Amino acid sequence: MIIVFKPKVNEEEVKKVVEQVETKGLTTHLVVGEGVTICGVIGDTTKVDPKQIEVLPVVEKVMHVGEPYKLANRAFHPDDSIIDVSGVKVGGDHLALIAGPCSVESKEQVIEIAKAAKAAGANLLRGGAFKPRTSPYAFQGMGSEGLDILVAAKEATGLPIVSELMSAEYIEEFNEKVDLVQIGARNMQNFDLLKEVGKRCTKPILLKRGLSSTYEEWIMSAEYIMASGNPNVILCERGVRTFETYTRNTLDLQAIPVIKRLTHLPIIIDPSHAGGKWWLVEPMAKASVAAGCDGLMIEVHNNPECALCDGPQSLKPKKYTELIEEIKDIAKIVGKEV
Amino acid sequence: MIIVFKPKVNEEEVKKVVEQVETKGLTTHLVVGEGVTICGVIGDTTKVDPKQIEVLPVVEKVMHVGEPYKLANRAFHPDDSIIDVSGVKVGGDHLALIAGPCSVESKEQVIEIAKAAKAAGANLLRGGAFKPRTSPYAFQGMGSEGLDILVAAKEATGLPIVSELMSAEYIEEFNEKVDLVQIGARNMQNFDLLKEVGKRCTKPILLKRGLSSTYEEWIMSAEYIMASGNPNVILCERGVRTFETYTRNTLDLQAIPVIKRLTHLPIIIDPSHAGGKWWLVEPMAKASVAAGCDGLMIEVHNNPECALCDGPQSLKPKKYTELIEEIKDIAKIVGKEV
Amino acid sequence: MIIVFKPKVNEEEVKKVVEQVETKGLTTHLVVGEGVTICGVIGDTTKVDPKQIEVLPVVEKVMHVGEPYKLANRAFHPDDSIIDVSGVKVGGDHLALIAGPCSVESKEQVIEIAKAAKAAGANLLRGGAFKPRTSPYAFQGMGSEGLDILVAAKEATGLPIVSELMSAEYIEEFNEKVDLVQIGARNMQNFDLLKEVGKRCTKPILLKRGLSSTYEEWIMSAEYIMASGNPNVILCERGVRTFETYTRNTLDLQAIPVIKRLTHLPIIIDPSHAGGKWWLVEPMAKASVAAGCDGLMIEVHNNPECALCDGPQSLKPKKYTELIEEIKDIAKIVGKEV
Amino acid sequence: MIIVFKPKVNEEEVKKVVEQVETKGLTTHLVVGEGVTICGVIGDTTKVDPKQIEVLPVVEKVMHVGEPYKLANRAFHPDDSIIDVSGVKVGGDHLALIAGPCSVESKEQVIEIAKAAKAAGANLLRGGAFKPRTSPYAFQGMGSEGLDILVAAKEATGLPIVSELMSAEYIEEFNEKVDLVQIGARNMQNFDLLKEVGKRCTKPILLKRGLSSTYEEWIMSAEYIMASGNPNVILCERGVRTFETYTRNTLDLQAIPVIKRLTHLPIIIDPSHAGGKWWLVEPMAKASVAAGCDGLMIEVHNNPECALCDGPQSLKPKKYTELIEEIKDIAKIVGKEV
Repeated sequence: MIIVFKPKVNEEEVKKVVEQVETKGLTTHLVVGEGVTICGVIGDTTKVDPKQIEVLPVVEKVMHVGEPYKLANRAFHPDDSIIDVSGVKVGGDHLALIAGPCSVESKEQVIEIAKAAKAAGANLLRGGAFKPRTSPYAFQGMGSEGLDILVAAKEATGLPIVSELMSAEYIEEFNEKVDLVQIGARNMQNFDLLKEVGKRCTKPILLKRGLSSTYEEWIMSAEYIMASGNPNVILCERGVRTFETYTRNTLDLQAIPVIKRLTHLPIIIDPSHAGGKWWLVEPMAKASVAAGCDGLMIEVHNNPECALCDGPQSLKPKKYTELIEEIKDIAKIVGKEV
Repeated sequence: MIIVFKPKVNEEEVKKVVEQVETKGLTTHLVVGEGVTICGVIGDTTKVDPKQIEVLPVVEKVMHVGEPYKLANRAFHPDDSIIDVSGVKVGGDHLALIAGPCSVESKEQVIEIAKAAKAAGANLLRGGAFKPRTSPYAFQGMGSEGLDILVAAKEATGLPIVSELMSAEYIEEFNEKVDLVQIGARNMQNFDLLKEVGKRCTKPILLKRGLSSTYEEWIMSAEYIMASGNPNVILCERGVRTFETYTRNTLDLQAIPVIKRLTHLPIIIDPSHAGGKWWLVEPMAKASVAAGCDGLMIEVHNNPECALCDGPQSLKPKKYTELIEEIKDIAKIVGKEV
Repeated sequence: MIIVFKPKVNEEEVKKVVEQVETKGLTTHLVVGEGVTICGVIGDTTKVDPKQIEVLPVVEKVMHVGEPYKLANRAFHPDDSIIDVSGVKVGGDHLALIAGPCSVESKEQVIEIAKAAKAAGANLLRGGAFKPRTSPYAFQGMGSEGLDILVAAKEATGLPIVSELMSAEYIEEFNEKVDLVQIGARNMQNFDLLKEVGKRCTKPILLKRGLSSTYEEWIMSAEYIMASGNPNVILCERGVRTFETYTRNTLDLQAIPVIKRLTHLPIIIDPSHAGGKWWLVEPMAKASVAAGCDGLMIEVHNNPECALCDGPQSLKPKKYTELIEEIKDIAKIVGKEV
Repeated sequence: MIIVFKPKVNEEEVKKVVEQVETKGLTTHLVVGEGVTICGVIGDTTKVDPKQIEVLPVVEKVMHVGEPYKLANRAFHPDDSIIDVSGVKVGGDHLALIAGPCSVESKEQVIEIAKAAKAAGANLLRGGAFKPRTSPYAFQGMGSEGLDILVAAKEATGLPIVSELMSAEYIEEFNEKVDLVQIGARNMQNFDLLKEVGKRCTKPILLKRGLSSTYEEWIMSAEYIMASGNPNVILCERGVRTFETYTRNTLDLQAIPVIKRLTHLPIIIDPSHAGGKWWLVEPMAKASVAAGCDGLMIEVHNNPECALCDGPQSLKPKKYTELIEEIKDIAKIVGKEV
């Protein structure tokens, strides 16, 4: 931590700040130049809240040197984490292929899509049972009944299940029925939910990036889950909000190399929600794999025209099958197995 | 609702879409020009999910004419809603002055600040007992004990209490102890929490705008609460996220006239969280009142240098007192009582 | 300047960097702790490009302590700059009231609006002769003929003229005809134009903030003009681009106190372009004055329904007159003369 | 164009608007429902400025159906445009590989880099002679002398030259010395410069996307150049501004399929400026090719530690050579020749 003092600070005032910091067991190094006084602080600076220093009248600003996260930090865990989702490995040189409908609508629908997705090469099945909708008047999902349909589809295909959890109330039901528990973008900073899935969830967590969250905030949300007891977190980029209105969101693929540099956690990409248009899925899925992502989550629907939710961004099974063929070739070039 | 067809659509295809829409009891009007075919749809269009139309291969796009919210809509409720917070009126020509520390730290602290705030003219006391913090390692608030301290401060000063609720688990406790229940920016789209406070909360709700939420999304979140049974919602602008890094967020004061035009709900401004710097609070508070806001939520702390949270953005009681004096003069000009 | 080294750097490598910095005549102070090595650099750090340090393999990052601007910096010029625009003072306790049509359309129109604006209390006349339009097919302004019309309106009313310059080619003509030369938001980083108006323009400059420019970038563009020889720069906030689409842009009123703290230059607000809707102008104009701005630039049109450009955001003269009355009362409270 | 009227409009008022529109030779179709009146307008709607309709008191809003650009529009020019840059084809199934230093610093430097880039597979040489810098105190480029060095490098290697033009004053010099004239992000809406390069530039134009420009604005800037007489425009995505601060900008690869759908112009990607970090270049370059871009513009420097500008984002020739090898394999999969 570095403390930058105001230009005309006097020695006495600086001394008081330095002493205050040193009482927390930290070592300080003062650098005094013409018009500039800075203080380098060495030691476990997590004991000091920088805002409490910054509020002092003689302090101009406080700068961080290190990252505020530990458990997720690549620096303390140099190897890639490989997360086991009921037998499917995510991370390292594995490529997770998650496919399925946005919403679970009926047993027939889900099983049909699951079979087609599996035939195409998917190794995980997604489906929304509890749906976060902007409008209270929109279809809110089938709830527990939807989870049961997913379980039936798993029995029929062997594909482990990914589904979104919106309330801590259902954690035990998800532990029983679901293999990878998704926390949605809008709940990325629902800190109570993060703590609860950290404590009580026995399955790995898929943590989507918030619509306007920085990399650091996203990693800190993963840190919440990990610090609460669940080390198995997979990150998922799904587009961020910008000024552009033609696409639903702007997909940030720089997230792939950045997350891999800062953390040891796997990162997968959801090109369906990012763009909101089915014809953006194919090029963005290929780009994601070329950039080194650990997986793709893609909406596949047997009849997008009749989907109860997000039809415009869903691929038909035939299109998905063709895409996976091309994906396999790109994966090989960047050293990923499919 | 207006359906715009693709340029080279044929009559047969258009007919199919029109029929599909009409089966929902809606009336259609077709407009066919050279290279352009559009269809105006009249009736209760909330029965149709525009995305399900948009996904049809012959449809270019679907445009909305009306707003997707009803209960919050000014069009169906032309008069200002005035919300009663345990005797303090918010909305209309009343100006709510909410003051207090970011976090509850001790009984002495809160009572001292509450007395000073009341003396300055504040009519509501704020204080965080459950704190949403980006880091799992930061101070998370005193919890229920903090609420009890607020209750003691209310007893000492008569000021009703505003505090943030982060989990549905505590609704009953908030009903008992708190007068205005705050839903924080990060939970603005925690739809399960919105539904629960709509159903179970007996007190009015203060709904903060999400960091990158549009006006429409924000109003839709109010609509969630109202549609679930609680009509008493006050909106609170607290800055939105932009590219600017010098300030914590960018305060959007256009929200005041826009929200008043679109809805009948009161809107208050939180200049402390928006800028993140105490010296921005005074000019932004005056600006907010001049623009017609229904209240101000300002952080006041007796000793900002030692605050456990957000010290840099807190005013000392003396400064707050001076500010309220100036605020009163501006309020008079724009027709608000203090 | 502070250099933060990578965690596992060795002494030899640090020494090399330190020596490189010292050859530029700067003094260094090394701070070495467990896992952290930082180097404080004292002296005229403008001689060193931080990017050239940052690229060194052993360097983690380089942090700035001071601001990169000098001539515009409040630290080196503590008093407010008061700019004289052909006799009208801008800055200090003066409030500039700039009014007029978006585009000059005809002599009759401009003179009629100018007279009404003057009667309402405006002290400067605005009018666009050269128009920056997103579309090459839109009306591009009357050009030099438009400037002549403005000159005629000045003769008729005595109001000095504000108009936008889009190309260095016309600087001499602007010197002759215009009193305050506007550089538009889209040209804020047209560095060649900034240098030319700095060198050749004999009139003060009104520099609008770019649509997504930070405070620092904006001030650096003022610095370009000042460093090229023209010290008379007035800054103008006109809204920044965010995710919100209901308004044209988001007006950032925090810019007022921030610009006043960082620089000694006057700052005026353009609420007409920010919101893009006439009914946002009144509340935002009042808010701007309450926040301490040095002036308002407002579009006034005698017949907005027939305006060739930006009609929806123009006030009619009657509305403008009423607004100025209220503005005067608020100005008094915050210590500004009208 | 669709005109949406206010809810309680009367017949007489609607009629007036309809007549006003029809005087422009357009056909109208009125759709009247309970509480909703809309008017579909058919014909050449570029004759009507929608803002002039929107300002009418009875009109709620005006919605566009078509795009405002023609010459750049894929709808009127279904085949890909292939631009010839002094013999190097850009667009279609060709992949342009532009490489070189950010700034021209010396003849030896540029020739060395140009030779290495060519050996690696690059087919165009980039180098900045006129540099847009945020600070007036930063190195502003070598100017005309820099262009002469680029010409010498072209003579030595045969690689055509790409360089940025910042002022219309130098167009003739660029016509003589440069093969592809770059318009920088900060000048994307410098409309006077766009018109001049449209009129006077005999070479193709590389138009970078503005830092916060929408797809439509970017295409409209291309339309300016095309409408002024120069049809040879190549678009270049270089990252957009978001809230994220870890990277310089957020690279928007969705731009590739979107631009290809909306226009017939080639689109190339500049991953060096987008991220601002050399280790982001490799994954983003691969992703761009996988997504179907028509070229890559990458900064290559023989000695990034000593670069006068943007060293941290430059690749060394060895790294660039390895990257191009991998790029070739991906290009094959997506049907591009290198």
